[in-house]
Amino acid sequence: MKILSVNCGSSSLKFQMYEMPEKEVLISGNFERIGLDGSFYSYKINGEKTKKEANLPNHGDAVKILVDELLANKIVNSLDEIKGVGHRVVQGADKFDKSVVIDDDVKKKIDDLSSLAPLHNPAALIGINAFSEYISSAVHVAVFDTSFHQTMDRETYLYALPYSWYRDYGIRKYGAHGTSHKFITQYMNKYYGENKKLIICHIGSGGSISAVKDGKCVDTSMGFTPNAGIVMGTRSGDIDASIIPFMINKGLTASDIDKAINKESGFYGITEGISDARDIEDGIASGDEKCILAQNMFVRSIVNYIAKYYVLLNGCDAIIFTAGIGERAPLTREQVMKELSCLGVKIDEEANKVRAEFKKVSAEDSSIECFVVPTDEELMIALDTYELI
Amino acid sequence: MKILSVNCGSSSLKFQMYEMPEKEVLISGNFERIGLDGSFYSYKINGEKTKKEANLPNHGDAVKILVDELLANKIVNSLDEIKGVGHRVVQGADKFDKSVVIDDDVKKKIDDLSSLAPLHNPAALIGINAFSEYISSAVHVAVFDTSFHQTMDRETYLYALPYSWYRDYGIRKYGAHGTSHKFITQYMNKYYGENKKLIICHIGSGGSISAVKDGKCVDTSMGFTPNAGIVMGTRSGDIDASIIPFMINKGLTASDIDKAINKESGFYGITEGISDARDIEDGIASGDEKCILAQNMFVRSIVNYIAKYYVLLNGCDAIIFTAGIGERAPLTREQVMKELSCLGVKIDEEANKVRAEFKKVSAEDSSIECFVVPTDEELMIALDTYELI
Repeated sequence: MKILSVNCGSSSLKFQMYEMPEKEVLISGNFERIGLDGSFYSYKINGEKTKKEANLPNHGDAVKILVDELLANKIVNSLDEIKGVGHRVVQGADKFDKSVVIDDDVKKKIDDLSSLAPLHNPAALIGINAFSEYISSAVHVAVFDTSFHQTMDRETYLYALPYSWYRDYGIRKYGAHGTSHKFITQYMNKYYGENKKLIICHIGSGGSISAVKDGKCVDTSMGFTPNAGIVMGTRSGDIDASIIPFMINKGLTASDIDKAINKESGFYGITEGISDARDIEDGIASGDEKCILAQNMFVRSIVNYIAKYYVLLNGCDAIIFTAGIGERAPLTREQVMKELSCLGVKIDEEANKVRAEFKKVSAEDSSIECFVVPTDEELMIALDTYELI
Repeated sequence: MKILSVNCGSSSLKFQMYEMPEKEVLISGNFERIGLDGSFYSYKINGEKTKKEANLPNHGDAVKILVDELLANKIVNSLDEIKGVGHRVVQGADKFDKSVVIDDDVKKKIDDLSSLAPLHNPAALIGINAFSEYISSAVHVAVFDTSFHQTMDRETYLYALPYSWYRDYGIRKYGAHGTSHKFITQYMNKYYGENKKLIICHIGSGGSISAVKDGKCVDTSMGFTPNAGIVMGTRSGDIDASIIPFMINKGLTASDIDKAINKESGFYGITEGISDARDIEDGIASGDEKCILAQNMFVRSIVNYIAKYYVLLNGCDAIIFTAGIGERAPLTREQVMKELSCLGVKIDEEANKVRAEFKKVSAEDSSIECFVVPTDEELMIALDTYELI
């Protein structure tokens, strides 16, 4: 059975087609700069990559080209071979605690939630509508980035703010990266043969850390928005919120603030210009003080969350590093593990050299097992879609 | 030697006079509603309390009455017996890392820092000027609520925000309650005979938690302002800062936000009306769900900081509970200690019944010793003043 996994951004469209249940990737690719000048797309079949320029005024044009390429490359002989299309949706809030088959009611709810994700939910809806038109025989499924976190209890997801803000505006913790946290949870469940207490560190240019118990999310570091939690590439992570009204009194607008704390903070803010973790690592190697400072603040913010979740879970069995930095930055993993020595964590320095493949990176006598596990959000979307068909 | 300890708020003035170095309290009291209708003052001598109505248009009038009462009650026979006056100043920022004798330069700096503490620093200056006029022969000392936290290192006090916000506006972590954290640190140093690794929980209607090593503050939960950190009576503690621009887009002003997160949040926000911890306890006893929720969120926020600081300090020797709730709320201490069981903390339930006196409240086989230690900020101010004379 062929399943297509789709992730629409405001000017992009990523896709991956699977043969299920074998999980074989038939084609993957992405369309970039939709609605902008210089748009193009690229795809990979059997490891061979093709890149083409294209006129892409809107997402519908991208979908039209995609289905043509699927047919031309004989990925499918007919579009009705595609039994399911899974769509990533950023914000499901408390309306969706799992993936669902899309109908008019689901579309309306995704639309209603746009105020909580003004850039992302409308883009997802455009994608859903375009794919529904071209691949109408398939079952379309919405996979929410928040739904894995809907198991958090009330005292965890509420803020100690005026209760009316929750009641009237939905101000609470929703979390993000749920598709990745769910993938890792299922992966580790299979590895152990049972559900263990996990602390999952999804650390990329955006990052979030989750505490998982009995296969369910207990707490997560992102909050009402993805700006909360650990230090990120351009996002501040946790700060004293009173800084915001102070800066507004200095003349900044709400939109200036949003931009500053989401696009000009984190690594970028501390170093005044470097947001990529690889560049930070290069800076550290050449002794750049701001890069060292940024890395130390970053590591500390990760360690803080692991410490909190260790106590919240009443001890934990495994710490998992995943996503861009988690999978590919031995230095960060090493610093984090060494800071956790008082909890009995011991690194296996040799094993920790691993990049982007499954490996246990803690020593045999570590009190908590630490792993690198590559995440696969696209596959998780396909799996959820497959299960719903 | 007679030392007066003074704490001026915008409409209040608290005082305490000591015979030093014996630390004997000769008189204590406070003036309320200065500059408002219905102003009054009260004082206590040898346990006997006196309350009087008085016309108090400004702080100078209060100081005039205070010196008259000191003479009338024969606390002093002449004002030049008062060798020192210690003034509490809320914000010393990075200008003051210890208490200092007040001169014109110090006064100017306190004034310059008013933008960081717009309600408190100007009130302190008014008090300093009034006391300097009436008790001109004394040495006047400024004791800053932030200076104990000036030992935090750069990666701890900086936020991952645009660096220019730090450079241009002084946006960084300053902390608060430093006078109390310093008092407890010195107290425990005397108890142990050496400096240990401490986590100090100053928990009152406002609350802050500090990690202390070798007698120095390593980190603290309050931030740029006292709104950060744990859940408080009316303050939110840590939230996702992105909530603020979201609410501003809903029509709130910076000043609405300041009021909401400082005066209408915390216990008050969750319960929609109850800010006092004693009323929360009563609500819990009668099964009120919102009070139970508020207490659980409060306890979790304390436990989170203890967990972080335990790892930051690479293990710790003692956890200290102090201030209103810390000293007088066995329930909160019990819940906190029980949540820390995975770190080896064990409560002594019988000892934990203590209120407002020094006592070890952890069991003999607890991995971390837990104590109740009554704080005494007024005495700390007097001690710093005495030492500078």
